[in-house]
Amino acid sequence: MKKLAMLIMAALTVFAAYAQGYKVNPDATVTFSIKAPKADNVSVAGSISAKPLNLTKDSEGVWSVTTPQLAPDFYYYWFVVDGVKTLDPKNHYAIRDTATLFNVFIVPGEQSAWYAVSDVPHGDVEQVWYPSPGLGCDRRMTVYTPAEYRKNPNKRYPVLYILHGTGGDEGAWEGLGRTSIIMDNMIAAGKAVPMIVVMPNCNVNDPAAPGYTHEGMYITTDGRSYGECNKFEMAFPDIVNYIDKNYRTIADKQHRALAGLSMGGGQTWRISLNYPDLFDYLGLYSAAIGWGEKNVQLEKYEEALLRQFKNAPALYWIAIGEKDFLLKRNNDLRAQLDRLGLPYSYYESTGGHSWSNWRLYLTMFVPQLFKK
Amino acid sequence: MKKLAMLIMAALTVFAAYAQGYKVNPDATVTFSIKAPKADNVSVAGSISAKPLNLTKDSEGVWSVTTPQLAPDFYYYWFVVDGVKTLDPKNHYAIRDTATLFNVFIVPGEQSAWYAVSDVPHGDVEQVWYPSPGLGCDRRMTVYTPAEYRKNPNKRYPVLYILHGTGGDEGAWEGLGRTSIIMDNMIAAGKAVPMIVVMPNCNVNDPAAPGYTHEGMYITTDGRSYGECNKFEMAFPDIVNYIDKNYRTIADKQHRALAGLSMGGGQTWRISLNYPDLFDYLGLYSAAIGWGEKNVQLEKYEEALLRQFKNAPALYWIAIGEKDFLLKRNNDLRAQLDRLGLPYSYYESTGGHSWSNWRLYLTMFVPQLFKK
Repeated sequence: MKKLAMLIMAALTVFAAYAQGYKVNPDATVTFSIKAPKADNVSVAGSISAKPLNLTKDSEGVWSVTTPQLAPDFYYYWFVVDGVKTLDPKNHYAIRDTATLFNVFIVPGEQSAWYAVSDVPHGDVEQVWYPSPGLGCDRRMTVYTPAEYRKNPNKRYPVLYILHGTGGDEGAWEGLGRTSIIMDNMIAAGKAVPMIVVMPNCNVNDPAAPGYTHEGMYITTDGRSYGECNKFEMAFPDIVNYIDKNYRTIADKQHRALAGLSMGGGQTWRISLNYPDLFDYLGLYSAAIGWGEKNVQLEKYEEALLRQFKNAPALYWIAIGEKDFLLKRNNDLRAQLDRLGLPYSYYESTGGHSWSNWRLYLTMFVPQLFKK
Repeated sequence: MKKLAMLIMAALTVFAAYAQGYKVNPDATVTFSIKAPKADNVSVAGSISAKPLNLTKDSEGVWSVTTPQLAPDFYYYWFVVDGVKTLDPKNHYAIRDTATLFNVFIVPGEQSAWYAVSDVPHGDVEQVWYPSPGLGCDRRMTVYTPAEYRKNPNKRYPVLYILHGTGGDEGAWEGLGRTSIIMDNMIAAGKAVPMIVVMPNCNVNDPAAPGYTHEGMYITTDGRSYGECNKFEMAFPDIVNYIDKNYRTIADKQHRALAGLSMGGGQTWRISLNYPDLFDYLGLYSAAIGWGEKNVQLEKYEEALLRQFKNAPALYWIAIGEKDFLLKRNNDLRAQLDRLGLPYSYYESTGGHSWSNWRLYLTMFVPQLFKK
């Protein structure tokens, strides 16, 4: 018995020595650990906490900290060791968003179950180059086709177009947004009808994500996505035309949805003003209404808005967090819609301008689509 | 003038303070820098050097080191700061290979120009789930279609199937292998005919890359890719059938190639023995001949080899580095082929078992395909 106890002790010691990285505890707190015997200060930052958390060192030189209970969600984080940003050497899952690379993990639970890969049929995800006559270049987008798409070679599908925010790119909704995983899960659960999802690059001056253009491995952080106002939005039918030509879509307004977050929410607002007959379902997530203009004057858009709502969309869904810095602008839009007597739906979540909310909004938006 | 000089000085100081990350110098040496004022030891490791290089600290706390001249190639690296593995906080390009995450960059030059995104038409890259009756599960693969594929809706294309090594997955040839970029460049330069390239997951017990299965964000490092010998290889027609059904292929031996690196080279050897009528072009890159067997006895395969070469492949190309630990096994295979009088081509490169060689072999192999 003594021998067995010693073996177990030895095994536990080994375990303790290697128990680094992140660990989701049964009470939904999360323990972060990193071995750095020579460091004086270690912290962990990211969506796990409003402020960085300080770790404390044990006798083996392993630093650790346990968070308060975290909501079921998909989180990102990184360590700072004596002032040096350090990805978790024990977590090999990392996502680049704009010019930041961070580790990711899931705290399991009801909402985050939509974000976890499940044992359900999986759709395909394609990086597609399409010609944009309107913008004068070939551009890149991500296209999700549902698991059943290739099994039903004669069936046609509705399409959701979904747009990223400032500094994001055609990989954002699939990376931090977990779009294909959410769609697989919601379609398998019968919460969403099988649909194609298109995630374009919405930075008017960038044809593709950093590293996928001939500029090489170069990150855009100089705000050059801020192009000529309404240029990307006017050229949007280039994308719709390419999708309708190359995928088995139902090519009418009733079977097209458009949504976007932040800048992409502003683009959604403007594209639907430009082209009132293209999309029947609109989702404005934390939308930067008036995106691209210095002084947003909503009254300028009143005529276009009335024209758009003559044949009112089946759904005009505005969602934003109670702490979002764009709340006022969304309130202004709602006041305008109210004043003109135009129908829309509104959802105000907790929190602010975050992926946590945008993933939530996607899971709330998608079940409302194409069910008429 | 003094003012201007001071301004320039100030600008240079700012530049120096922020000149961290990696910098490819005009003489093809590379300078690595990282700000870590409190650290005692900083090194940089990866494919840039056989042994880690030590950095030295300046008065601002910025550590740096300059490599000897590096050959034009696609490199990976990471820092170690006081014993802690640290990705470069100033380089946002990172690739996961098995359980390692590292930064990447290119040293420009003639060979590495194939690895850099150029201003040429780009093909599409898709993550595809296919059913494998032979392995009893849905599995994931990466499929490249050439830029012209959607522009020629009636044209059919030859297919190259290319297999990763131990611990790699369906993302390996596209990540460290730079396959779609190489193909775009070689097709645009007229060095390769337009073709579809299929990169399956070749780990018999894993349907998909880590993070894309319902096991969640879990990394396989326990060698479970070592499944029952010849099981993956016997099921390989599942992949070919799915591709022939879902893509516009020319579905005959003359328009199919199969290649693989290390484990994937061994699988290429074995698949072509199993199915002599499927592939006309075979590429064994640093091949683990006899993969999956404890004691490889090539004489056991003599009959199958003779059967395979009755209708000899148009190309049986063996490539390996002079320092590769699998050199003897490849020499044994060549001795067998020589003894039996079976035709093959051989290329012996410098170096060993490395992505540097496997990318090189791909750029040498592809121009030999489908030109009869």
